[in-house]
Amino acid sequence: MNILKYPDTNQLAEALRRPVSKNSNLNESVASIINRVKIGGDNAIRELNAEFDGYTNPELRVSKEAITQAASSVNTKIKQAIDLAYSNIEKFHAAQLPSDKTIETMAGVICSIRYRALQRVGLYIPGGTAPLISTVLMLAIPAKVTGCKELIFCTPPNPTPELLYALGLFDADIFLVGGAQAIAAMAYGTETIPRVDKIFGPGNSYVTEAKIQVASQGVTIDMPAGPSEVLVIADEGANTAFISADVLSQAEHGEDSQIIMLTNCERILSETQDEIRRQLSSLPRKAIAEKCLASSSLILVSNLKEAMAISNSYAPEHLILAVENPNELAAEVTNAGSVFLGYLTPESVGDYSSGTNHTLPTSGFARSWSGVSTLSFLKTTTYQQLTPTGLQNLAEATITLARAEGLEAHARAVAVRLKEMGV
Amino acid sequence: MNILKYPDTNQLAEALRRPVSKNSNLNESVASIINRVKIGGDNAIRELNAEFDGYTNPELRVSKEAITQAASSVNTKIKQAIDLAYSNIEKFHAAQLPSDKTIETMAGVICSIRYRALQRVGLYIPGGTAPLISTVLMLAIPAKVTGCKELIFCTPPNPTPELLYALGLFDADIFLVGGAQAIAAMAYGTETIPRVDKIFGPGNSYVTEAKIQVASQGVTIDMPAGPSEVLVIADEGANTAFISADVLSQAEHGEDSQIIMLTNCERILSETQDEIRRQLSSLPRKAIAEKCLASSSLILVSNLKEAMAISNSYAPEHLILAVENPNELAAEVTNAGSVFLGYLTPESVGDYSSGTNHTLPTSGFARSWSGVSTLSFLKTTTYQQLTPTGLQNLAEATITLARAEGLEAHARAVAVRLKEMGV
Repeated sequence: MNILKYPDTNQLAEALRRPVSKNSNLNESVASIINRVKIGGDNAIRELNAEFDGYTNPELRVSKEAITQAASSVNTKIKQAIDLAYSNIEKFHAAQLPSDKTIETMAGVICSIRYRALQRVGLYIPGGTAPLISTVLMLAIPAKVTGCKELIFCTPPNPTPELLYALGLFDADIFLVGGAQAIAAMAYGTETIPRVDKIFGPGNSYVTEAKIQVASQGVTIDMPAGPSEVLVIADEGANTAFISADVLSQAEHGEDSQIIMLTNCERILSETQDEIRRQLSSLPRKAIAEKCLASSSLILVSNLKEAMAISNSYAPEHLILAVENPNELAAEVTNAGSVFLGYLTPESVGDYSSGTNHTLPTSGFARSWSGVSTLSFLKTTTYQQLTPTGLQNLAEATITLARAEGLEAHARAVAVRLKEMGV
Repeated sequence: MNILKYPDTNQLAEALRRPVSKNSNLNESVASIINRVKIGGDNAIRELNAEFDGYTNPELRVSKEAITQAASSVNTKIKQAIDLAYSNIEKFHAAQLPSDKTIETMAGVICSIRYRALQRVGLYIPGGTAPLISTVLMLAIPAKVTGCKELIFCTPPNPTPELLYALGLFDADIFLVGGAQAIAAMAYGTETIPRVDKIFGPGNSYVTEAKIQVASQGVTIDMPAGPSEVLVIADEGANTAFISADVLSQAEHGEDSQIIMLTNCERILSETQDEIRRQLSSLPRKAIAEKCLASSSLILVSNLKEAMAISNSYAPEHLILAVENPNELAAEVTNAGSVFLGYLTPESVGDYSSGTNHTLPTSGFARSWSGVSTLSFLKTTTYQQLTPTGLQNLAEATITLARAEGLEAHARAVAVRLKEMGV
């Protein structure tokens, strides 16, 4: 880790620079995969499953039997943990459901905005080193809460029984296909996998690049997701064992994850440094965490206000406020995905169980993007209806503005109605 | 116009196909403009202003004096029309402001979602044949209602006094630059024009392509906007003079606009055909409207239910329900940008004055995108805070799920806190 004390602007900018992915052929590789799926459909998916995942079973859809079988092999403790997380996530996302609004902007001018669920959504669940049971819940529960009619899951071949069990909790079609090919299938449809209205879900650099490429073709995606990251602000009352554990829980995510810790207390800085090293030694994913720590920084700043200004400019995905008065500091947050308040709130509860969504904007996107929420599965439609009075109330302004913009037919659409009404 | 009676699936698909833009070099031209602005900053903008708009004044910023001068030259009728539209748009968008939510998902687990305004937004206002005073209101009022701190307008050189007057109603920086170069400036910043958090606004094919290109680089945009379009559903009670005027108010927008009219009444079909021709003859923008009508269709269907199914599959930007019971039919709408209910509600009131936003998803994007609303200027951040009880309530589930995903450090971040609490 880089240790910086009262850094100047350039040192700070260097420390806050996010690690850059190195794969220069990514763009072309992903474009080629997308093209193969567009042209070849299911057969291309089968070839890609064999190439990338060594999976040669031609059946892409997971059967009800496979789900039932998986459910019987998952132990009760995991099922109970999933139940608890499910319940909290459902409560928090149901609380976010917006209500339709109707107002009369002028007498006889009735305007409404209505929220409607997306009809068919595609949820990508990564496989890889950490099978993301939690991602199933984080994406499918808000979809269900809003009333999306059709849920499509794609996940790489050979899912674990735990993952299959979680997938089986939802009334959904589950397809065994991973990577860029899964994104392409949901974006354009194949014989078996239907085209969806919006694609959600995290993934490796192939998945992310595929989402960006299909988005530029007009397919809707949740957000451009990069490597995970956390920024910790700790005051002199922080427990260094806690914050070191938080730092490492971020570090084990991936080599390209990033951690920034800011403190106004020199003792905390040096103790955390030692404690991280101590805790690291016994971690199963030590090798990954170590690489992540290399691009991470512990930074001593003058005060918490300065720390918050740095955090707002970094716009972290996760922000831990390990300080005595977290709510006071939280009021100053302008850019962050999810915030963990106080000494007792580890990031892991947001990842799994508190009820908040863990699909959050990374790479500074918290400046303008929101994390996945109930709203991500809704779209709005507006409505207006005029009574004769309403038409009269709007007529002159509408005609005047239309003519000022040189759009005479717009004016006439109002005038012809007025005339018929004998006004 | 194409006239179709009870078309089969193929004929219908052909009629609903959206006109395709022909400029095959657009991608490269726009990429080159964006690159020039990225490298050259203000100087590139000045060169491009000269090249594209014949504008050689090096000053890019509109002065307060220019605004004051414009205001004095705009007539009272236009000012009053703007005031009325302003008031309705403000009321409707203020009514949409969501409220922050805090709930206790379990005892001691407090979760919140807070809505915060984007800090700096870039609003593009096209120039061209129709100076869009209304677009200024439609973008800047919701930005103001949500509390965005900084508004940046870009509009092509030589704006009309009316446009300058409308721009001057907001506390904003106004820059004279149009096209792809304006989008690039707001996306990446120049010496004078600041980089914004999100770019809004309609425009020609250059502007749209530039928005798509910067979006694929991670810049946030309102939506990919294509040519405008309307779908009209008319029953036997519809007034053909009204719906013909509505059709033509869409047709005058641009040659690549599209109109689909569906009716269950053969008399309405043939009368509308004649009436459109009659009204067209006296339109100032007749040449544009005629070209648009060439790719538009009047279609006879069996009943209104079928008409609505076609509309939902087309997902129109504007949907006019010129029917006796519009609210009954409106309940069946799944995909549309904005809906105009009944015989007396022309699309033009939505374009200018009713209060709804006229920045709407085109090209079928209404399947998954929303029009611009108050929400477009907000982002969400979630918060969680645990009490000791809350931590205990979440501990086992969090540790179990973290271990099931192979993320031991996530489990330890909880365990270390439990241990310290002596649990």
